[in-house]
Amino acid sequence: MTAADADEEVAADLADRVQDGELRLYELEAHADADTAAMARRVLLERETDADLSTVGDYSFPANEATGSNIENMTGAVQVPVGVVGPVHLDGEAASEEHYLPLATTEGALLASVNRGCAAIRAGGGATARVLKSAMTRAPVFRVADVAEASEVVSWVRANEDRLRDAAESTTSHGELVDVTPYVVGDNVFLRFGYDSKDAMGMNMATIATQEACEVVEAETPASLVALSGNLCSDKKPAAINAVEGRGRTVSADVEIPADAVGDVLKTTPAAIAEANTRKNHVGSAKAGALGFNAQAANVVAAAFLATGQDPAQVVEGSNTITTADVRTDDEGNESLYASVTLASLELGTVGGGTKLPTQSEGLDVVGVRGGGDPPGTNADALAEVVATATLAGELSLLGALASSHLASAHEQLGR
Amino acid sequence: MTAADADEEVAADLADRVQDGELRLYELEAHADADTAAMARRVLLERETDADLSTVGDYSFPANEATGSNIENMTGAVQVPVGVVGPVHLDGEAASEEHYLPLATTEGALLASVNRGCAAIRAGGGATARVLKSAMTRAPVFRVADVAEASEVVSWVRANEDRLRDAAESTTSHGELVDVTPYVVGDNVFLRFGYDSKDAMGMNMATIATQEACEVVEAETPASLVALSGNLCSDKKPAAINAVEGRGRTVSADVEIPADAVGDVLKTTPAAIAEANTRKNHVGSAKAGALGFNAQAANVVAAAFLATGQDPAQVVEGSNTITTADVRTDDEGNESLYASVTLASLELGTVGGGTKLPTQSEGLDVVGVRGGGDPPGTNADALAEVVATATLAGELSLLGALASSHLASAHEQLGR
Amino acid sequence: MTAADADEEVAADLADRVQDGELRLYELEAHADADTAAMARRVLLERETDADLSTVGDYSFPANEATGSNIENMTGAVQVPVGVVGPVHLDGEAASEEHYLPLATTEGALLASVNRGCAAIRAGGGATARVLKSAMTRAPVFRVADVAEASEVVSWVRANEDRLRDAAESTTSHGELVDVTPYVVGDNVFLRFGYDSKDAMGMNMATIATQEACEVVEAETPASLVALSGNLCSDKKPAAINAVEGRGRTVSADVEIPADAVGDVLKTTPAAIAEANTRKNHVGSAKAGALGFNAQAANVVAAAFLATGQDPAQVVEGSNTITTADVRTDDEGNESLYASVTLASLELGTVGGGTKLPTQSEGLDVVGVRGGGDPPGTNADALAEVVATATLAGELSLLGALASSHLASAHEQLGR
Amino acid sequence: MTAADADEEVAADLADRVQDGELRLYELEAHADADTAAMARRVLLERETDADLSTVGDYSFPANEATGSNIENMTGAVQVPVGVVGPVHLDGEAASEEHYLPLATTEGALLASVNRGCAAIRAGGGATARVLKSAMTRAPVFRVADVAEASEVVSWVRANEDRLRDAAESTTSHGELVDVTPYVVGDNVFLRFGYDSKDAMGMNMATIATQEACEVVEAETPASLVALSGNLCSDKKPAAINAVEGRGRTVSADVEIPADAVGDVLKTTPAAIAEANTRKNHVGSAKAGALGFNAQAANVVAAAFLATGQDPAQVVEGSNTITTADVRTDDEGNESLYASVTLASLELGTVGGGTKLPTQSEGLDVVGVRGGGDPPGTNADALAEVVATATLAGELSLLGALASSHLASAHEQLGR
Repeated sequence: MTAADADEEVAADLADRVQDGELRLYELEAHADADTAAMARRVLLERETDADLSTVGDYSFPANEATGSNIENMTGAVQVPVGVVGPVHLDGEAASEEHYLPLATTEGALLASVNRGCAAIRAGGGATARVLKSAMTRAPVFRVADVAEASEVVSWVRANEDRLRDAAESTTSHGELVDVTPYVVGDNVFLRFGYDSKDAMGMNMATIATQEACEVVEAETPASLVALSGNLCSDKKPAAINAVEGRGRTVSADVEIPADAVGDVLKTTPAAIAEANTRKNHVGSAKAGALGFNAQAANVVAAAFLATGQDPAQVVEGSNTITTADVRTDDEGNESLYASVTLASLELGTVGGGTKLPTQSEGLDVVGVRGGGDPPGTNADALAEVVATATLAGELSLLGALASSHLASAHEQLGR
Repeated sequence: MTAADADEEVAADLADRVQDGELRLYELEAHADADTAAMARRVLLERETDADLSTVGDYSFPANEATGSNIENMTGAVQVPVGVVGPVHLDGEAASEEHYLPLATTEGALLASVNRGCAAIRAGGGATARVLKSAMTRAPVFRVADVAEASEVVSWVRANEDRLRDAAESTTSHGELVDVTPYVVGDNVFLRFGYDSKDAMGMNMATIATQEACEVVEAETPASLVALSGNLCSDKKPAAINAVEGRGRTVSADVEIPADAVGDVLKTTPAAIAEANTRKNHVGSAKAGALGFNAQAANVVAAAFLATGQDPAQVVEGSNTITTADVRTDDEGNESLYASVTLASLELGTVGGGTKLPTQSEGLDVVGVRGGGDPPGTNADALAEVVATATLAGELSLLGALASSHLASAHEQLGR
Repeated sequence: MTAADADEEVAADLADRVQDGELRLYELEAHADADTAAMARRVLLERETDADLSTVGDYSFPANEATGSNIENMTGAVQVPVGVVGPVHLDGEAASEEHYLPLATTEGALLASVNRGCAAIRAGGGATARVLKSAMTRAPVFRVADVAEASEVVSWVRANEDRLRDAAESTTSHGELVDVTPYVVGDNVFLRFGYDSKDAMGMNMATIATQEACEVVEAETPASLVALSGNLCSDKKPAAINAVEGRGRTVSADVEIPADAVGDVLKTTPAAIAEANTRKNHVGSAKAGALGFNAQAANVVAAAFLATGQDPAQVVEGSNTITTADVRTDDEGNESLYASVTLASLELGTVGGGTKLPTQSEGLDVVGVRGGGDPPGTNADALAEVVATATLAGELSLLGALASSHLASAHEQLGR
Repeated sequence: MTAADADEEVAADLADRVQDGELRLYELEAHADADTAAMARRVLLERETDADLSTVGDYSFPANEATGSNIENMTGAVQVPVGVVGPVHLDGEAASEEHYLPLATTEGALLASVNRGCAAIRAGGGATARVLKSAMTRAPVFRVADVAEASEVVSWVRANEDRLRDAAESTTSHGELVDVTPYVVGDNVFLRFGYDSKDAMGMNMATIATQEACEVVEAETPASLVALSGNLCSDKKPAAINAVEGRGRTVSADVEIPADAVGDVLKTTPAAIAEANTRKNHVGSAKAGALGFNAQAANVVAAAFLATGQDPAQVVEGSNTITTADVRTDDEGNESLYASVTLASLELGTVGGGTKLPTQSEGLDVVGVRGGGDPPGTNADALAEVVATATLAGELSLLGALASSHLASAHEQLGR
């Protein structure tokens, strides 16, 4: 009996025991190695449903690299097509010159669109990008007796930010508490802790550090912790607080493209793009009651997140993006298109979470930002600048396509 | 020379030609089969960056199945760990009894959390789920001369919905135009077209059908199309119009769980969960200026979307979710927890887009909803009901964890 | 003893009895005429505070005209300075030619600003204005058992709109039920009733009619009414549902002004105004997470509301206004400024409520719209068109002032 | 000829000259005293419309007290009925014991409603109120070349807040710059200046001080001022930035009322009020995409603003109010209702603006807060605490009425 056959036998036996009610689905790793446990779950699912899970089971990494920290009840891996756009030209503070960016998606036409935008950016001499603010937040909610007590707690917090900092930073080797902002609603006190999490996306660090700080608040004030996250963070919810104050990195990218280059690459004019941007991204989003004033920022953010091991649920915050587009005229009457994107709350990292997985870390290597930066934080800054620039590319291309009226035909052709 | 060696040689040659400026990255499929073109891009990226792309290149499907309609500039595939939760017990209109649901994520603790919530739901006798509304929307923006003309166009549209329906439906074998709602802002007229797209997510269908209808509007009225999408759709942007009126499917799931079962499974009480829900999901989200009043709906939606071939950028709309949790007391004084989730704008399908890819279609098979339903639309309805129920499970589990104060320790332990 | 002296004696006696705890403040009308009761309250307040209420007591209408339906515990009247702007030139459907508009305010510079805007509009040949939608809404919330029951109630409502219409319209001689839109969140069912309330603002009519319809819903479905207003109306709260779908009247006004007239009247250029509008009203409001994209719509709406007897708390909805401003160039290269305002939810009337009071009805007479219109609704439509045009004037003037950098100096000079 | 007759003759003559095109409406004060100028405008309007303006002309203060700083083109005064509620019992930091509060409105039932709520608050032993934050804001928008320049400007501002403070405070004897927060969107830099304006509402002070600070920014950085208000202030627009960060005063009031007192005064139970609050104010407002989670805060704020000389257009921000209501049970099983209101952005003052007018300053005297406080700011703080408590009263009463199902009948009876 080969080793593979033996594994299959163990897996089948485990599946039997789950079906007999002897074992629970999540207990299998206690009875077999992670790959065999995953196989056992596939066997079970194939028995109980019509599924054939052979492709899901054909993954390219040792299961125990994922089951330790990325997933439970693993059955295998989903394969999402990935491609590359670029080179992305930009002048950033952390990123510069040119970068390739992998994008994983199943939406036809997306990479073609971003790539066309990259060409437009190159025709404008490259983008400029800046990280304007950086803080991962966690905002616990406390119960107090009444608004008088709420007021006391707020005063205590304002006077004791140092003690909270000491407590919070005692739990982390690299994170730094940037600020704590109190908010009160009746007998609820929310404290929004903001951290510099360097190259990590930082939710885990922020959560652990905040928990420690909460113990100090509970010890020193009458406030009683109700939930370590009180939704003023705000994680993975569309929320104005993130759009206004930022979360993760607030990053902008912009470019100025001469009118003839707009014509060559985007087949339209600066004025037509500016008009489409105004009517769609500004007026349309205003009328829609939106917190995102852009054409397709989430598309680019989602595809870049998947390809580089970020959390796709945080695409929600990534979509808090404002796009601007204006015609500029120089002293000699030459027109150009000025366009910018500002992503208020782009949450990403180059260490931890999904970035360690093989295909994802290969993606970070393509950008040139795998692991911790030197100094710390610069790799994640660079990734933010590249993603912002690619987002700008996506905006330019889609606005250009709308302006030249071939969105639907592009879709028709590419099956989008 | 083996076939593989030959492919490598072709790929290396193509990479040379790109580096020489002779070919563009996106042109390689014209010079080789899709797998070899992808390999050529990997070769190129490996030369120009420090990346080793061997795992990205180890995908399990013929590249041309993806390059036709899902991606351009393909280099390979990203592998995202996938696991399974369930069985999910629910009484829906399209789904019923029990379903397994695959979830793809790199966020440790998520599946454990959802699975615990599924146990809580089972302890409550299963969830109830309903699709309350279903319409994929596309909202072009037109330019008019002034508000008098805007008013005329609106009147024409209201009087001629039939003509728009004929035009729109002429482009699709299965889609149906449900309604057209006009909105005016100054010299901008937006028409929000809503379609029953059956088992397809429907963006592509809606775009093509709307383009046809726009031609009628332009022919019959003075309105001039500026952009086929005017952001009142609103696609992949956090927007109140979706939270209020819905987009894709509006779906609710709820459950009533006896207090002792809440204690057994969630280690807390109905009152503690209701309090956490009020202070975090209602008051906290209110104070945050949010369009999502939930704990972690986006986590579940994102993971289910990845595992079943949906568009992860549409997690943005999926996060427009309101969670409620109340204590109910029966005539004999027995307490239970009533909890619900309502996802206003869940956009998904069981045909088209990423659902055709092998690992993703295997995911749909696990749920039992691959392909078109009978009658059409019921497979996507069923998937929506299952995802809503899993979202409810995620809410119950996270609220329970917050209520019993072990969120951070769970994270610490599982490396989330 | 004169009659006045006698009244004073009665008032003093009533005040004594309130101070002795024998009477309650609100009971005085049962013991004296309305004017004497108001005097008694002034006497009481003058005794218990340092106030001298002689000016408050110097009002110009019989108190019982107000105490019947406008106020309780009346002490007198507040006097707010009122002025007039205009003539406002407009081409509306209900209003046309020119109208004067009274504005009551204590904010110096406001009338001067609006008046300057009116001059700019006249220089552009007058504004165009249109009421695009008209429906006063009331949205009760019902409790149901679960989402299955919610779904049933929604289906019943959709199938029985006629029965709801009959019930609702049985309570009103002039109001018409336009539509009923159901919304579900878990075990909450909201029904948003929209009424054509003709020349009345309509809240009272809508409330009474909806209550009658609710009785049918409760009789025929398992839904149980929790609150006659469930905040999806949404009355006097900043809410996207009003900004998106409208409430009261949705009304737009616009104008095109030649560049030289912009220079003459507003001391700036079309391009400068367009830039200020983009950066402030579009980008600034977008970044602020706003539901209002304008410069000072609320100022004009508030002042017009006060002067014509509207409800000043509904200025909240009036501020849901989007302003656009663009440079237009004709075939001969002549530039002009196109500017528009769209007030999504302007709630006003020419009958009922505060419109009956003397100074307020005089205000309506200045506009030429007192009482019911012929046909019904046209007086309120005309008022809406005039207010929209004045709002446009306010936007033009303030944008012009900002563009020419003298906002603060105008304030300094006028003490605003 | 009497003096009055002489005035009438002058007025008639002025009206002639306006009709002849010799004078403009706003120029009349240059040709007559303010009262006669107002009379002339009334004469003109009576000639050109069907209006009889005798009541508008019957005002009780010298016109020149208003024309100097409160109004232009004055014709007279609007009289709004005012009544009184209270005593309002509260334990505040600036206000305490009991206060009467005048409310001016034309909406029948409002004062009765608030008064009933005051009774409920007294039954709970009085409210607790606190001002939690106080800052009037003004946020200019600057144009920069690109995001690199934006980043530089932000850095400069963060490093030079002292210089901005010096400049800003040089313009004011009492105002203090509290903070300056920069926000960037592409080539737009917004600086949100927050001031402690003591007893003044502060818009005028903030505008003048900010203008001075802007000159420093323009002198020292490449930024160019586009508009002194860039809508991140955000004045008189519904905006999340105010709801989240506050503007003017952020003030909370709460009360705990024993169940039997809830029954006696509000004719319902704590649980019924809590349920109505959850379903209407939390779930309903959430579904409505609201920035206000309350029942009728704007009603109370508007009426108090009118009666005390505040700016009614700022009711918009006053409506950014969150109401909470929960059942509390003590150790002996006794139930009570805990209810709170938090007004995020209540903008008011006791000096300046409309507070100087006679009826309005009488209103401030009724509350006991006319003029500057000792120490400065305490009068406005006290007024904020009283208004918040009255808002709480309005919430309690309306929620109670909804819970006991007699909203519409109250309206029917009182003609609201």
